[in-house]
Amino acid sequence: MRTLSVNLGSRSYHIHMGAGLLARAGELLAPVLDASKIGIVTNPTVGELYLKPLETTLRARGLEVASVLVPDGEEHKSLSSLATIYDQLIAQRFERNSVLIALGGGVVGDLTGFAAATFLRGIPYIQIPTTLLAQVDSSVGGKTGVNHRAGKNLIGAFYQPRAVLIDVEVLATLPRREFLAGMAEVIKYGIIADSKLFALLEEKIELVVASDQDLLIEIIASSCADKAKVVENDEREEDNRAVLNFGHTVGHALEALTGYQQFLHGEAVAIGMVQATKISRVLGFCDDASFRRIHQLIARTGLPAELPAGLDLAALAANIEIDKKSSGSKVKFVCCVGIGATRFHWLSPQEIVRALSPL
Amino acid sequence: MRTLSVNLGSRSYHIHMGAGLLARAGELLAPVLDASKIGIVTNPTVGELYLKPLETTLRARGLEVASVLVPDGEEHKSLSSLATIYDQLIAQRFERNSVLIALGGGVVGDLTGFAAATFLRGIPYIQIPTTLLAQVDSSVGGKTGVNHRAGKNLIGAFYQPRAVLIDVEVLATLPRREFLAGMAEVIKYGIIADSKLFALLEEKIELVVASDQDLLIEIIASSCADKAKVVENDEREEDNRAVLNFGHTVGHALEALTGYQQFLHGEAVAIGMVQATKISRVLGFCDDASFRRIHQLIARTGLPAELPAGLDLAALAANIEIDKKSSGSKVKFVCCVGIGATRFHWLSPQEIVRALSPL
Repeated sequence: MRTLSVNLGSRSYHIHMGAGLLARAGELLAPVLDASKIGIVTNPTVGELYLKPLETTLRARGLEVASVLVPDGEEHKSLSSLATIYDQLIAQRFERNSVLIALGGGVVGDLTGFAAATFLRGIPYIQIPTTLLAQVDSSVGGKTGVNHRAGKNLIGAFYQPRAVLIDVEVLATLPRREFLAGMAEVIKYGIIADSKLFALLEEKIELVVASDQDLLIEIIASSCADKAKVVENDEREEDNRAVLNFGHTVGHALEALTGYQQFLHGEAVAIGMVQATKISRVLGFCDDASFRRIHQLIARTGLPAELPAGLDLAALAANIEIDKKSSGSKVKFVCCVGIGATRFHWLSPQEIVRALSPL
Repeated sequence: MRTLSVNLGSRSYHIHMGAGLLARAGELLAPVLDASKIGIVTNPTVGELYLKPLETTLRARGLEVASVLVPDGEEHKSLSSLATIYDQLIAQRFERNSVLIALGGGVVGDLTGFAAATFLRGIPYIQIPTTLLAQVDSSVGGKTGVNHRAGKNLIGAFYQPRAVLIDVEVLATLPRREFLAGMAEVIKYGIIADSKLFALLEEKIELVVASDQDLLIEIIASSCADKAKVVENDEREEDNRAVLNFGHTVGHALEALTGYQQFLHGEAVAIGMVQATKISRVLGFCDDASFRRIHQLIARTGLPAELPAGLDLAALAANIEIDKKSSGSKVKFVCCVGIGATRFHWLSPQEIVRALSPL
């Protein structure tokens, strides 16, 4: 098992990573579980697989455990699911020192974190992410929230968990396509901050996607450490945390434009990263060799790299426009300046798509 | 004008107090209004009186101002009003650097603060409280939230405003009964932390309730300073901030038991404070002289002091039981140990009502 610290003063916490950790959750989380009541939030799919072993290890520590099921799917990351969680916590008489555990992917994690942030003005919570995407991204850093019909994550809070427990064994039951989509965020850390991780992926990507457990732990640990460093320096995204949005400006717009049906988030980010690198090259920030390495690694991972043929670029620009990260008419675009380094550049949505247009 | 600092590190802010400040809001708030868009949240009653002058002073600074009306009344401090605010902010394309202003009493303030805490994971907000209760209590300290049908303030966040602007002139339009109810919280600060304020009230309560403006500014300033000191030492109510609940254990239970129809919050707190002092005397913490002074000041203010005749004490105990501040079977009860000082004492709801029962 590896343990990593996220250092945020009084909001600091540990990330534990390893194989078979879920069944040891009671023991591993004991230091942060001085509560009488634990509420596990999960969805039916993940619950079916992992709820019982988690309940068992917690009950073995004498804890009172209740479970809350929320429906599976991004459309249920909503104010309405949130109300369901509140109702159940109240019905079960949860108190200020009760603890929530998010057992699931990003939807469950974001929803549970936001419920914890806002129930009785904040109760502790723990992340046990069960998708690769959640393990390397959404479970770390304290971004919580729900969607609004007008857009994703428009309602939420920065609220750090008390601990994150990452068990790579649960990835065995993750659908292949979701696993690969999660790899997009791993590659992202390599591009924006970690040339060593990028080189490791270049060397062993076939082994990684074949789910070699030691390698998985290695790349997850690197990803979490990279993210933690960024979050430690700018917890509330007032400045440099925005580098984590690399590939997300085009990625988000592409997801929205295709009605969240055609691409998984990670797939859209994979395309977005290649396009962001292309734009960085057009702007003269990024050399050809780095572009080729990024393009190639994404392709070898089995992720899409190109915008769909015939995509309406004007519509893509319109979707970038309504992206919440824009302020005024320009977007704080994250450019790649070589493997492991970035810079910001303010671009209008029109300038972004112009850089992507075929000559 | 008086200005007071609330010192909470990066979350510090000023409270400005005086007469006629509302019309000068644009100038006074300029240092915290580096935003293009301002959203004023108010209700129809307050909006009718004060929205136009506020909009005028803000627009005179070149700010783009939008207004959101929420219905009047505690029952509208709800997730549903919150959704209304989100919808309007989204429709008006509010961004991370947009600012909300709460113009109204506690309901508007708590609701607006929570909307600000959770829209785009937190945008700045300013409190312009228009009731005495909100001026001395709810607008200061960052408690925000909404009610759940199972209880008040069950959903919320600690989220500090960027500034509080208190204009005593707006109290002229406050219904008399609401004004007096607000005085209960002023008296509370005297009892729990400020024997000088208590003595001033004893000396001049008739002038205060006749709305002498200089005296009002004086007692509001003392109240806010007392509250700020408590909040600075324990922002998230993990310890001593609970002293602010003096009179509220019995007060809340009484409000709930009478369906929030019979007593205004401050009236229930006035009764609760007299009862809490009675209990403190029974426990041997408080002398007879202090009890008499407290009882007398509350009576002179024109506030109720006694539980309604024939009240079902067992039902009162049951309502104390479901109060969210209880942990396990005992309540962290705030006792008075003389004017200006308190201590905590863990009591079961039964012990509380037993101390109140006629012999």
